[in-house]
Amino acid sequence: MSEPIPIVGGTGALGFGLALRWARAGREVVIGSRSAERAEAAAAKLADAIPEAKASGAVNDEAVKRGPVVFLTVPFRNQSENLNNLREALAPEQLLVDCTVPLAAAVSGKATRSLGVWQGSAAQQAQEMAPDGVTVVAALHTVSAPSLNDLDATLDEDVLLCGDRKTDKARVAELVEAIAGLRAVNAGALEMARIVEQLTPLLISINTRYKTHAGLRVTNLPDGDHWS
Amino acid sequence: MSEPIPIVGGTGALGFGLALRWARAGREVVIGSRSAERAEAAAAKLADAIPEAKASGAVNDEAVKRGPVVFLTVPFRNQSENLNNLREALAPEQLLVDCTVPLAAAVSGKATRSLGVWQGSAAQQAQEMAPDGVTVVAALHTVSAPSLNDLDATLDEDVLLCGDRKTDKARVAELVEAIAGLRAVNAGALEMARIVEQLTPLLISINTRYKTHAGLRVTNLPDGDHWS
Repeated sequence: MSEPIPIVGGTGALGFGLALRWARAGREVVIGSRSAERAEAAAAKLADAIPEAKASGAVNDEAVKRGPVVFLTVPFRNQSENLNNLREALAPEQLLVDCTVPLAAAVSGKATRSLGVWQGSAAQQAQEMAPDGVTVVAALHTVSAPSLNDLDATLDEDVLLCGDRKTDKARVAELVEAIAGLRAVNAGALEMARIVEQLTPLLISINTRYKTHAGLRVTNLPDGDHWS
Repeated sequence: MSEPIPIVGGTGALGFGLALRWARAGREVVIGSRSAERAEAAAAKLADAIPEAKASGAVNDEAVKRGPVVFLTVPFRNQSENLNNLREALAPEQLLVDCTVPLAAAVSGKATRSLGVWQGSAAQQAQEMAPDGVTVVAALHTVSAPSLNDLDATLDEDVLLCGDRKTDKARVAELVEAIAGLRAVNAGALEMARIVEQLTPLLISINTRYKTHAGLRVTNLPDGDHWS
């Protein structure tokens, strides 16, 4: 029995794409939004696409109470506001998976450029703002939202995870790898999010030149289970 | 008829590995070093490994005069000094391919961390310091030097190129792809070196965890020639 997966900002392109993919894999998802109506509408849309889906919608601070590993998929512009709003809702022992990327687009700059975040990265900002006992893992910066949303698109790429404890990353890896075509790679401590978050503007630059939705693969990794 | 490839710092691990691979591909290489003796010794070592190699050694400021596309493969600690020394030797229309990575290891820090470079990246520093008319392309940050040096190792990965003119990147791409197993990818303008140079500490972090020499592949790129 796997537990429901709350997605804060689950009505956005990345969050909804993840919800679709997990639902297709038989996982239960809880789509969070600032608005209960929009959350429920997204859950209904998901059920239209995948009739067997186990999906519901809820306001963000209700959604996060429904599962132990919470995904934060809001734009960087809204990250701090969301973290403030979730301060009372998140509980010790929960994992918060931050997917935020500090693109300069947040302040009307280019999407191939990024903002400097005082803490080092959006994920480190999330860790600073999260309630005591809530641990942040950074993930899912390089998976194309359009590709996730296109259920006919075959995924074949890696997801780099940054976090300070391997056991936390292993829990997130299990969820990432529940999505067909994704492999989780241990990229190191949470501070490595400084680099991994930059992969999004890099891929945006490549996408512009090749007119595609590129992803990343780490080559030459040994086979086997690296999480236990 | 392809022209010789000068490699500044060609006695180092990355530079010598590239020299080996190009020599095996039938390209002529000029191994540059601060010391003519060490350059010639490296060329002799190369000829031992690959008897048919077309390789010679020369002091750096002689080496760079021998071919139109010059590779700079020195450690970041020595990058400025080398660029100063090459100011009179480099000529307009030459391309300078900067492979430098500002690892914090240059100042006794961790190899999974990097230094902030005022110009944005080591490659942008190289462009600022290069003589008028010499254009910088950034490349080869993610290819493992040990793998290049092990001629039994099969390469199967991408090399991200950053530069302000596509025609310059196309010239470098031809040289990169002369090495079996490497594909050149257009990562955008030279300023993208801010991100691409960070891929080295990222891979070092992954290598530590997986005990390997990882590389990168960009997935979902369309087939065909993207350089002409």
